[in-house]
Amino acid sequence: MNDPRLDRLRGLIRDVPDFPKPGILFKDITPLLADAAAFADAIELLAERVRPLEPDLIAGPEARGFLFGAPLALKLGVGFAPIRKSGKLPWRTIEESYQLEYGEDTVAAHEDAFAGRSRVLIADDLLATGGTVAASSRLVRKGGGTVVGAAFLVELDFLAGRERLGDLAVTSLLNYA
Amino acid sequence: MNDPRLDRLRGLIRDVPDFPKPGILFKDITPLLADAAAFADAIELLAERVRPLEPDLIAGPEARGFLFGAPLALKLGVGFAPIRKSGKLPWRTIEESYQLEYGEDTVAAHEDAFAGRSRVLIADDLLATGGTVAASSRLVRKGGGTVVGAAFLVELDFLAGRERLGDLAVTSLLNYA
Repeated sequence: MNDPRLDRLRGLIRDVPDFPKPGILFKDITPLLADAAAFADAIELLAERVRPLEPDLIAGPEARGFLFGAPLALKLGVGFAPIRKSGKLPWRTIEESYQLEYGEDTVAAHEDAFAGRSRVLIADDLLATGGTVAASSRLVRKGGGTVVGAAFLVELDFLAGRERLGDLAVTSLLNYA
Repeated sequence: MNDPRLDRLRGLIRDVPDFPKPGILFKDITPLLADAAAFADAIELLAERVRPLEPDLIAGPEARGFLFGAPLALKLGVGFAPIRKSGKLPWRTIEESYQLEYGEDTVAAHEDAFAGRSRVLIADDLLATGGTVAASSRLVRKGGGTVVGAAFLVELDFLAGRERLGDLAVTSLLNYA
């Protein structure tokens, strides 16, 4: 029943053991990006999934969120807003911090990124614990926007990130149990 | 004689004084990204410029290079290879270091990113002194690829980055004297 394009995408995700630290099996998306047809399929499939949400802006966390968020925005005909680490954006920013396993991290966006944007979709390559996306979602609201959903190429189901995102509409092309 | 789309793009670049340090006038591309039609025009114009080079892969340095390189790859129907800071890529990497005003920086790519890619185009948002692009170009060759050119949204002519890139074909949509 699966779309055969999804099987092909799955075959282009490379498992890398022990990155970024021992015990983590990292999902490397670079073989997919290198395959022009697969990369195009991924963006088309994400667009099909999120079009019903009628987003008026795609927001993507750096850096891998840019790889899917920017093409998705272009495919849907809406603008793109980068969400960056603190200190990277040149103009006036809003920020949101979130807890990591050890310490904390901060996401930032320009003050004018989300004002009046009533249907913001967050796009990233991978949903793990959901910390970055939850913080990004708070950031959009802080900036005067409304989040309608979040879309990912890959979702690590066993980390239950989706539960952390409350009632946000979440879609992923490739789920790993 | 100018394409009116270019004038419109130029109007969406925001000058931010004293970022990232005093005396630097930063060219902020986020207003352009937020404008769906302008972002699409930028990618279309870049594609028109580089299509004669017949690239078979686009390589883009993180993070802003992802914003233009990935959509450009999709527009041209070729794959994309991310060039990242050292330590960010999960698999086996090749690296190239380059001098900054103070200290040095390193770019990295996967070992298999450029092998057999005979027409690699490097894409980034902005050409300043050319250090990152020159190092990226060496990186492509180290990985077994050939660089056919480099494309930028913005070029700061007064920093003469183009001269640092030797006989590489360089194109930019918006030049600042």
